Amino acid sequence: MIQPLPISWFVDNLPEQQIVEDFFKETIQKNYTMSGFTPLDTSAIERVEILTSKGADDNEIYGVHRLNGESNEANLGLRFDLTVPLARYVVQHEGKLSFPFKRQHIAKVYRGERPQKGRYREFYQADIDIIGNGKLPLFADVEIISTIAQALKQLDFGDFRVHMNNKKFLTGFLEHIGIQKIQEVIAVIDKKDKVRWDKLTIMLGDIWVDTQQKEKIYDFIFSIKNLSTQEIFEKFWSIENDLLLEGVWELKYTYEKLLDLGINNETLVIDPSISRGLNYYTGMVFETFIVGAEKMWSISSWGRYENLAEHFTKKSFPWVGGSIWLSRVLAVLDQLWKLDFNKKTPTQVLIINMSEKDMSHNLGILKTLREMNIPSEIYLDPEVKMAKQFKYADNKNIPFVLICGEEEIQKDIVVMKNLTSWEQQEIPQENITNFLQK
Amino acid sequence: MIQPLPISWFVDNLPEQQIVEDFFKETIQKNYTMSGFTPLDTSAIERVEILTSKGADDNEIYGVHRLNGESNEANLGLRFDLTVPLARYVVQHEGKLSFPFKRQHIAKVYRGERPQKGRYREFYQADIDIIGNGKLPLFADVEIISTIAQALKQLDFGDFRVHMNNKKFLTGFLEHIGIQKIQEVIAVIDKKDKVRWDKLTIMLGDIWVDTQQKEKIYDFIFSIKNLSTQEIFEKFWSIENDLLLEGVWELKYTYEKLLDLGINNETLVIDPSISRGLNYYTGMVFETFIVGAEKMWSISSWGRYENLAEHFTKKSFPWVGGSIWLSRVLAVLDQLWKLDFNKKTPTQVLIINMSEKDMSHNLGILKTLREMNIPSEIYLDPEVKMAKQFKYADNKNIPFVLICGEEEIQKDIVVMKNLTSWEQQEIPQENITNFLQK
Repeated sequence: MIQPLPISWFVDNLPEQQIVEDFFKETIQKNYTMSGFTPLDTSAIERVEILTSKGADDNEIYGVHRLNGESNEANLGLRFDLTVPLARYVVQHEGKLSFPFKRQHIAKVYRGERPQKGRYREFYQADIDIIGNGKLPLFADVEIISTIAQALKQLDFGDFRVHMNNKKFLTGFLEHIGIQKIQEVIAVIDKKDKVRWDKLTIMLGDIWVDTQQKEKIYDFIFSIKNLSTQEIFEKFWSIENDLLLEGVWELKYTYEKLLDLGINNETLVIDPSISRGLNYYTGMVFETFIVGAEKMWSISSWGRYENLAEHFTKKSFPWVGGSIWLSRVLAVLDQLWKLDFNKKTPTQVLIINMSEKDMSHNLGILKTLREMNIPSEIYLDPEVKMAKQFKYADNKNIPFVLICGEEEIQKDIVVMKNLTSWEQQEIPQENITNFLQK
Repeated sequence: MIQPLPISWFVDNLPEQQIVEDFFKETIQKNYTMSGFTPLDTSAIERVEILTSKGADDNEIYGVHRLNGESNEANLGLRFDLTVPLARYVVQHEGKLSFPFKRQHIAKVYRGERPQKGRYREFYQADIDIIGNGKLPLFADVEIISTIAQALKQLDFGDFRVHMNNKKFLTGFLEHIGIQKIQEVIAVIDKKDKVRWDKLTIMLGDIWVDTQQKEKIYDFIFSIKNLSTQEIFEKFWSIENDLLLEGVWELKYTYEKLLDLGINNETLVIDPSISRGLNYYTGMVFETFIVGAEKMWSISSWGRYENLAEHFTKKSFPWVGGSIWLSRVLAVLDQLWKLDFNKKTPTQVLIINMSEKDMSHNLGILKTLREMNIPSEIYLDPEVKMAKQFKYADNKNIPFVLICGEEEIQKDIVVMKNLTSWEQQEIPQENITNFLQK
């Protein structure tokens, strides 16, 4: 006899948690599909040399090996994100794809890293990506952000903010105020959420940023986001720095197109402090926060890079990608008590199994309910007392119980009992689905 | 630069293949949900001691290890089916589940076995299971078969047959004709698809089956399925063997209830030759074949076992489970040329990007289409010539192209071009979604 022990940092969902996770997954998927992102579902297993191509930390990677396999098999591992496998896929299948290539992938990834709440060693990401062949217009960024914002809105958990920045905007500004070591200064700015400003000024001083520049940087990264978008555009429009102007233009273009696509202007924040991944990204970047949980984690992010597959090919595949950190969204909302774990089964109606004799009639009702897309079941055993059958429905939080015995069959009705209000009513048989679809 | 090589026996889908696979996955999932099977999504990773508990072949199992991890971590591996993890889950979370527990799980499993067409080292299974606590009525078998049959029907690939057998029926029959070594005879019968009958008779002779018994066995396993169900029931009803009668009764009950649930009687075949897993299963078993491909593989199967978690607990969890071998269904249908790989994107409508000036108007149309659940996109770049934009739609087999330039905006219409028929027509703006939903 083997005692089944849990595995550290791998977690099982209970049915009521799984139903919530699935609702999130399906809502996101539906929105990605409406925007024409085609599904891909590459293997969870990749060659280790592919996984480490971008310089990923081996320590995070799970290797995979046959327990009793031949030693000449390739070195394999589990994906730690969905982007490296995408880059590999695009290069391998380039000739069979049409570009710009828009794909979605909602799947689990595996990281042997130090676990955090909502980010265990196996967690869900929900990615969309647009890959160009040679070039990729700025509108691709708009598609990514609008699709993600629309998906988050339909998840209906409350307000969120998409904080947008642009590498050219930040870099151009730093150029404009005379910073020499731009990459290093951005690396310091990137620490702003973990390190207090008085510490950061010391670090900036170490790389020859003077006091006046420090003040301008402080103002830029912390105060700009309080201005209206119009004020931001006006403030920077007249500065003579080509890179900065290009950045402002890209922000303005993206912002306006997002409004055209119906994204609420309150949702969009131009925020020069967004600097995650700016050592890598080359244009627009964004991070998304739930209102009231800004100090927790970003629930969605990503950006643009001019060459997705640079480690695999000399060809240029400019790329813009976005991800909803699905497992994280759920963890944040759980901490905010915003998730409802009441539903323990998809079943909407339990048909009481009255007797063997009435079963044939009741199976006809069951068939109709299922055909009308009402998830339903009949209690498995007619020998069991009605009270116990009700208890089964109650334990699983099934909202309706349907009773149809000899008497009801003769009168061509059913008795429908609402297990929340405990009300019951008689309904003509032909009206059951109408009643439930209300 | 790293050359991305394929991994032997792991296969990437192209978009047009993925869309077909997803349609299958979603259709099956919808049917499982309509029958009230609650989703579970356990980790792909389990402890090796759990994976090997039922005596699985190590050689098939993929182990998982941190590339640079601590040596004191548990021995982990990838699941090779969805049933062993289920048994583990039920024992671990028993107190938080309501029984009978109905669950669905559609996911990939990993086997380092010799690969077959349609069964690579990573493949999809689509399982439903009902687990009792102590006892589980026969109607559970009906639920599994009817739900699977309904799902296969909605996949709409053509005719299929569910071949049902019952261990008690077969065992009782062998008892009745005086067979002593019943398990051994069943093991021989189980080879019938791979070994010719003249070889099988020699094997049966080796375990003291006499000529008359051999003839009766031949008749039973090969001829019974040509009788009508009614004839089968009548033929065996009068035989005085309790086990056989119980088997006949269970087959009859299951058959009749399946008809009550609207399963076509032509779909159901009582077939005493179905013997896969009968060393393990204890009651009803079934295998499903596509008409015209009976010699290929079973596309769905499973059965009942009286103690799912016997390796983990002394408690009794009777279980009935069924699986659609999703990757196999697709492989068989592909060989029969029954799959349509035309669709390369979910997009139904490509809006031509006429000019920067008209873009705002066209983004409004795009927003409306998406809100009406019509997957759609706008070509990313207004600088690109219209012919190239059409080529993009054509390459991706997008069915409709929508054109709305200055003139159309003034007339409050759009031009809708059907890329299959090459017909085009002018449509008032407010009628676009009606036109497309036809």
